[in-house]
Amino acid sequence: VEGWRLVEAALGSGLRVEALLISDSGERHMPRLAPLIAKGIASGAHILRTSDRLFAGIADTQAPQGIAALVEPRKTSVETLLSASSLLVLLAGVQDPGNVGTILRAAEVFGATGAATCSAEGVGTADPFGPKALRASAGSTLRLPVVHGLPMDSVVAKLRGAGVKVYAAVAPPQENAAHTFGAASYALLPWQADWKSSAAIMIGNEGAGLPENIVRAADQRVSIPQAAATVPIGVESLNAAMAATVLLYEAMRQRNALR
Amino acid sequence: VEGWRLVEAALGSGLRVEALLISDSGERHMPRLAPLIAKGIASGAHILRTSDRLFAGIADTQAPQGIAALVEPRKTSVETLLSASSLLVLLAGVQDPGNVGTILRAAEVFGATGAATCSAEGVGTADPFGPKALRASAGSTLRLPVVHGLPMDSVVAKLRGAGVKVYAAVAPPQENAAHTFGAASYALLPWQADWKSSAAIMIGNEGAGLPENIVRAADQRVSIPQAAATVPIGVESLNAAMAATVLLYEAMRQRNALR
Repeated sequence: VEGWRLVEAALGSGLRVEALLISDSGERHMPRLAPLIAKGIASGAHILRTSDRLFAGIADTQAPQGIAALVEPRKTSVETLLSASSLLVLLAGVQDPGNVGTILRAAEVFGATGAATCSAEGVGTADPFGPKALRASAGSTLRLPVVHGLPMDSVVAKLRGAGVKVYAAVAPPQENAAHTFGAASYALLPWQADWKSSAAIMIGNEGAGLPENIVRAADQRVSIPQAAATVPIGVESLNAAMAATVLLYEAMRQRNALR
Repeated sequence: VEGWRLVEAALGSGLRVEALLISDSGERHMPRLAPLIAKGIASGAHILRTSDRLFAGIADTQAPQGIAALVEPRKTSVETLLSASSLLVLLAGVQDPGNVGTILRAAEVFGATGAATCSAEGVGTADPFGPKALRASAGSTLRLPVVHGLPMDSVVAKLRGAGVKVYAAVAPPQENAAHTFGAASYALLPWQADWKSSAAIMIGNEGAGLPENIVRAADQRVSIPQAAATVPIGVESLNAAMAATVLLYEAMRQRNALR
């Protein structure tokens, strides 16, 4: 992880920090990080110093801040995601790392208890621990339990077997605007779904959405309605990150109203 | 506007299309656009053809599609934004054009009736008709009435004078987690605010939020709560686009429940 904000997040995350790499200009961040380094760094961890030039050579960003950490990701299994009040976000084939990070950030903000970044029909989800996803997550990837790389069908089967209600996010029907809000709609509106018990929301690929067999494996479909006026002219629906943010907000709203 | 999707949106928007510019490779988009061109183009409009090389020289994108249109933006005043059931989004100092476009897209999807992209304390909002904002809006900028460049204080005064309830989006308090959900909270939770009558939501700068004098000019503050666990560790709140998306969704949810 690179940059002082992510290094700070790593040191505060409880994850094992194996090494810190600091360049000459990166030294300016050390006073702020010192108390966290004292608490958060593994015994035997290496603190390495280098020049700005060498640091720039390995940095992923264009204007490197001169500080990076080597962090061991949390070991998480599907089983550890299960609890009496799980709120999970499941990504299937979300390929843009910025979207993956943004969704994990929204997940943490709205109280999700974990995430799975899965493949479906041979299309993988971008690595949540990659540099771009980590930055977009503002560090949430380091704090939230995240299972990466499993096939979605097996994850859904395990979750449903354990009593987690799995919702599939699908686009609203484009053909018939009235249908979107109609009683006979095949998909629940977000506020009709029950998010108060253990629940998971599945989000699909940016272009293609969720594969049909994955949608069928879910308990129910959920669809975020669009203003009727926009449907006939075929406005593209919300992107993957916006849809996930809205559904996670709805879950938080319902759970908060329980208090 | 550049690219076949935005040109298609422009032709379908009712805006005056002054000219079309098509390169050799852009010709492949013409069959799809022909019916819209017949209907949507101004009489006396110029249809210009050029080479791919010249087109690339003026194109804003890295892999140009060879088709662009010159469009006259809608003339909109604050007065035209007023109606018995307005739902408006007001941006003050939102500087990233991608955020501006994303917010206008969410506004259209959730049934907003207009937007104002304003300056506040000398900080302007990115031009919604700039190429990056237009692309991020997926064409919504061309369809939604948008007032650009006025100072926010005068817009708020006019809207409140006309009976529009103006809400200011503010970050949840960071110091005291309990306060976020507490009855004594100085800001309404999104679902406590009334979005069913004429309402406007104000969104501030990505880093600094709304200036204090603009917040005080609003009717009420609204704050999207974060999971209690994230507050003590200072997770950055949602970004401007995510916050706007959530509040516009909440407005749509309440308005839809009225039917």
